[in-house]
Amino acid sequence: MNIFGKMFRVSIYGESHGKEVGIVIDGCPSGQKISDNDFKVDLDRRKSGALGTTTRKEPDIPIIKSGIWNGMSTGSPICIAFENKDVKSKDYSSIKDTPRPGHADFVAFQKSNGFNDYRGGGHFSGRLTAPLVAAGVIAKKIIGKIKVEAKLIEVSGSDDFEKEISKAVKDEDSVGGIIECRISNVPVGLGEPFFDSIESELSHAIFSIPGIKGIEFGAGFDGTKIRGSVFNDEIIDDSGKTDTNNSGGINGGITNGNEIVFRVAVRPTASIKKPLRTIDLQSGKMKKISTEGRHDACIAVRVPVVVEATAAIVLADMIIRKNSR
Amino acid sequence: MNIFGKMFRVSIYGESHGKEVGIVIDGCPSGQKISDNDFKVDLDRRKSGALGTTTRKEPDIPIIKSGIWNGMSTGSPICIAFENKDVKSKDYSSIKDTPRPGHADFVAFQKSNGFNDYRGGGHFSGRLTAPLVAAGVIAKKIIGKIKVEAKLIEVSGSDDFEKEISKAVKDEDSVGGIIECRISNVPVGLGEPFFDSIESELSHAIFSIPGIKGIEFGAGFDGTKIRGSVFNDEIIDDSGKTDTNNSGGINGGITNGNEIVFRVAVRPTASIKKPLRTIDLQSGKMKKISTEGRHDACIAVRVPVVVEATAAIVLADMIIRKNSR
Amino acid sequence: MNIFGKMFRVSIYGESHGKEVGIVIDGCPSGQKISDNDFKVDLDRRKSGALGTTTRKEPDIPIIKSGIWNGMSTGSPICIAFENKDVKSKDYSSIKDTPRPGHADFVAFQKSNGFNDYRGGGHFSGRLTAPLVAAGVIAKKIIGKIKVEAKLIEVSGSDDFEKEISKAVKDEDSVGGIIECRISNVPVGLGEPFFDSIESELSHAIFSIPGIKGIEFGAGFDGTKIRGSVFNDEIIDDSGKTDTNNSGGINGGITNGNEIVFRVAVRPTASIKKPLRTIDLQSGKMKKISTEGRHDACIAVRVPVVVEATAAIVLADMIIRKNSR
Amino acid sequence: MNIFGKMFRVSIYGESHGKEVGIVIDGCPSGQKISDNDFKVDLDRRKSGALGTTTRKEPDIPIIKSGIWNGMSTGSPICIAFENKDVKSKDYSSIKDTPRPGHADFVAFQKSNGFNDYRGGGHFSGRLTAPLVAAGVIAKKIIGKIKVEAKLIEVSGSDDFEKEISKAVKDEDSVGGIIECRISNVPVGLGEPFFDSIESELSHAIFSIPGIKGIEFGAGFDGTKIRGSVFNDEIIDDSGKTDTNNSGGINGGITNGNEIVFRVAVRPTASIKKPLRTIDLQSGKMKKISTEGRHDACIAVRVPVVVEATAAIVLADMIIRKNSR
Repeated sequence: MNIFGKMFRVSIYGESHGKEVGIVIDGCPSGQKISDNDFKVDLDRRKSGALGTTTRKEPDIPIIKSGIWNGMSTGSPICIAFENKDVKSKDYSSIKDTPRPGHADFVAFQKSNGFNDYRGGGHFSGRLTAPLVAAGVIAKKIIGKIKVEAKLIEVSGSDDFEKEISKAVKDEDSVGGIIECRISNVPVGLGEPFFDSIESELSHAIFSIPGIKGIEFGAGFDGTKIRGSVFNDEIIDDSGKTDTNNSGGINGGITNGNEIVFRVAVRPTASIKKPLRTIDLQSGKMKKISTEGRHDACIAVRVPVVVEATAAIVLADMIIRKNSR
Repeated sequence: MNIFGKMFRVSIYGESHGKEVGIVIDGCPSGQKISDNDFKVDLDRRKSGALGTTTRKEPDIPIIKSGIWNGMSTGSPICIAFENKDVKSKDYSSIKDTPRPGHADFVAFQKSNGFNDYRGGGHFSGRLTAPLVAAGVIAKKIIGKIKVEAKLIEVSGSDDFEKEISKAVKDEDSVGGIIECRISNVPVGLGEPFFDSIESELSHAIFSIPGIKGIEFGAGFDGTKIRGSVFNDEIIDDSGKTDTNNSGGINGGITNGNEIVFRVAVRPTASIKKPLRTIDLQSGKMKKISTEGRHDACIAVRVPVVVEATAAIVLADMIIRKNSR
Repeated sequence: MNIFGKMFRVSIYGESHGKEVGIVIDGCPSGQKISDNDFKVDLDRRKSGALGTTTRKEPDIPIIKSGIWNGMSTGSPICIAFENKDVKSKDYSSIKDTPRPGHADFVAFQKSNGFNDYRGGGHFSGRLTAPLVAAGVIAKKIIGKIKVEAKLIEVSGSDDFEKEISKAVKDEDSVGGIIECRISNVPVGLGEPFFDSIESELSHAIFSIPGIKGIEFGAGFDGTKIRGSVFNDEIIDDSGKTDTNNSGGINGGITNGNEIVFRVAVRPTASIKKPLRTIDLQSGKMKKISTEGRHDACIAVRVPVVVEATAAIVLADMIIRKNSR
Repeated sequence: MNIFGKMFRVSIYGESHGKEVGIVIDGCPSGQKISDNDFKVDLDRRKSGALGTTTRKEPDIPIIKSGIWNGMSTGSPICIAFENKDVKSKDYSSIKDTPRPGHADFVAFQKSNGFNDYRGGGHFSGRLTAPLVAAGVIAKKIIGKIKVEAKLIEVSGSDDFEKEISKAVKDEDSVGGIIECRISNVPVGLGEPFFDSIESELSHAIFSIPGIKGIEFGAGFDGTKIRGSVFNDEIIDDSGKTDTNNSGGINGGITNGNEIVFRVAVRPTASIKKPLRTIDLQSGKMKKISTEGRHDACIAVRVPVVVEATAAIVLADMIIRKNSR
């Protein structure tokens, strides 16, 4: 469903080519100082413009509809909306009959019995991450000194991002990447066993971001190759500090006070000009299609701030839940 | 919290050395044929006994307390409990002051303000996976012809499981591994955007299993190294069948009818005899401790059936949610 | 929290004197025909204008922001907003220090640590019932032939509504009333024991409406005065039809196929010109205040359609939940 | 569903004539002192034995399965079970074909497609209130000095309880009653608008108790007969104390610090020996049936402690939710 969180809850809505996309934030404590300017830095990080990003240009100006008064959160739901301005819907008319490989077109059509707004991916569009980032800005305020930082660490298996992306742009193809997120100043005790481990909550939210196909904490998949005697992080002081951090700051699903570290795999952008085979649902025949429109050659470039926002939303919820005990 | 699911919900309870561990299953449709024998195969797969597994021997006999009558589910909550029989609590007395590296001892103590039942890991124990497997047996019935199969594909980075485990046992150390889960006969349309993608739900539940540190779907992390033109799975018939399956049977968070494929990273067992450093919370001094007790050298050997059960629980919930539309 | 429902969920936001009030409807099945005109009848019923209602005149034009395309629901969240136009905020400045008796001013201030938007009652305003009615219009479509009808049956203990309200207007006072809601064509089996009885769900939602202080089903409070032999509704055919309906169409928390009947008590409007004592929070001294502004002498007149909408929202959720089994 | 609460959650299971009834309490803060003896007083209040109560005698000994160790709550789920001992299942065999008027037999059969355990009402039995009372005992500890007291104030419209019940017993009939619950030492600010008003939460939980048909807060239904100038409770000090309490301690769905007062209507017991008409589902013919078995002539006598427990469960959840901000 389109709602996430237990005590700090976000409810998202909108489509790529509809009137607006937005988010309702329920459970934001009152008395948080929030101004329109607060959103700019993170929204700009998400914006296109860099090498290999789409030419769709949205002003991305957050419109606060409720919940903030005199520059402070009131404790009532905060609705933040973004109008869709730079919409060219004609590009998408063929999606209806020939679902694009790698996209949600086919499943969206099936799930909605054919009533989905397929323009620009509709509700599945990366456009929805704009309100997510806005909610993340508020979440970051709530978590206070806990610092969430995500950055791209690998593109197409390489650390020469520019080269890989340039090649992909030239080839009218796309590339994926890996993002690492580090969260510091984390209190001990976030996470609620058995089913709401901090990994459970973070992964749940992170996999909402379009294009994510994997997540690993601490040593992750490579950690399966080392022995327990090496993996176990020795505890070196009574605050729980450990000398290594193979567990990624989490034991038994609960934060141990060390840095939370996780990495996510972002698949190569699905929209590419290179023609691929799909089925024509009208004729039932195979057809080769090229995805027209304005797209990112490496969506991973724009995802770090979305990962941060999503992680901050989870942490805000977990902090509020922890406070309650 | 200790409850998972929206329409098919499980509520878990119990500690390693308490009276019993159990699970309450809410939302099981009436009219499911369920007998005591149905649980045996999966519970046996979870049991210890194989090379490198613990010598703690629990009969693991499920006791059905409610919700099943005349061999059929009634639609009311099903409570299934397992008594703890082979308990040797004396082994654990030192946990209190010297939290074991790699374990949840430190965080459990902090989170509970010192009131946690630390014997055998208490509520954090792998023992809780017995009721989870039992709930999985019921979930598998609900999902009908959808087939969930998980198996160990790698131990300590190698495919010679026996050799790696033998070496670890000999060295009084432990090893981790990777489990792959494949789910076939999946209907199109499971998964509820934006926040309840099928990856979100599966990862949420899977990360509840003790010792899991990573999950990836389809091509996963390796998928970040290939181009979009290769990653995109071409659609080859009007049922949505694709020629490759890099997306792991999921587009836009929704099942596309192809096999769901995911892999999970299981860390090396935390309990090892090899001495490691920790802090003595009484004296504040560093201390080397060896984890006594009866443990698995490679817990990953016993986890596949737990992964299956957990995935089946998620699918049962998603199927019921889908049916409702 | 500001979200209600499990499978058909509404998320409400906005304040009386803010930019807009609105609602996000999550879980509306795709393929529902919905046009702007559909909202008019119910929104008009809620409007002021009748004897004893406020002179605040809002156009109450629903703006659909998402989830509806080509006149049909897409299955994605539907956001419907109402702009606040006829706002006269200066009337409310004194609320801050002298909480109005009978209003939420005092508790809103306390709960928000003084950060609440108190203008016109802020988030507590009856203005929020406009989006609720809009969501009810959509819910009514989903429940199909189930018919929900609420009407005022008593004002100030009398059935001469006009007389009672006229007197109250003349006296610059206010009156309350009782609304009866009848729901027909109800399928057998709505309601989910133990905790989600149909009474539980209906009462939960109904008590969200400002000013409701009681609810009773079937014979209700008067039913405590008759014997079981009279109260028990005899079953007269195999569809479950009963000759009487003291249970209000509900047994064991589940609909029995007969008409659901419930009544709600609406308190007299809190805002009255007649001066009442309160505390001046600045000086700590008692003070008499008269509530200025534009108010309803009998809010109960406008509530029936809100009761209908709320009941329809509950039924839509319960129908979808029932379908899932 | 069979789970209630957001942060303090109870999950109930069991049937009247099954192995046991029980409850899992999730979210109980650690460090609560809880002993077996703590349950006795409230469980005894719920027990039969008084005039007009059933002759079924259950020892009602709570068995704590988890979550309490060394006499203290650990923070992990607390499972409390009650074995069913005094079961005479033969009494109920006819229910299957001839649903008892006033009972849930018909709807339970329909909802479960005929798979319900109908013995003694199965999962719909008042027997389920035993675990509810046990959970209430724990909830009362959590809410500390908040005092919840419910008592019977009316039987069959009269205050001569004994006389009314005696007459009913003699006539092999049953009577209902009204219970009043008063909650004192309530902090200002419990309740979470818009949808989780304190009335919403209390009524939701209270209507789970079998036989409840109405609830009213403060002046309730009678409050609709007085003018706003009388209804409005004047505020007489800066703690929010009011001189009258027509609002029942609640404004805008939030506690105002005054006593919470509500009354619930308990219908006359459905099980009576007096023959009533029903349908024989096999033959489709009308039939007169007398409800055999051991029943209460006035179940309302045993309900006050159940109302208290239920209210305490709600308050515990609301307190924990409030603490989190």
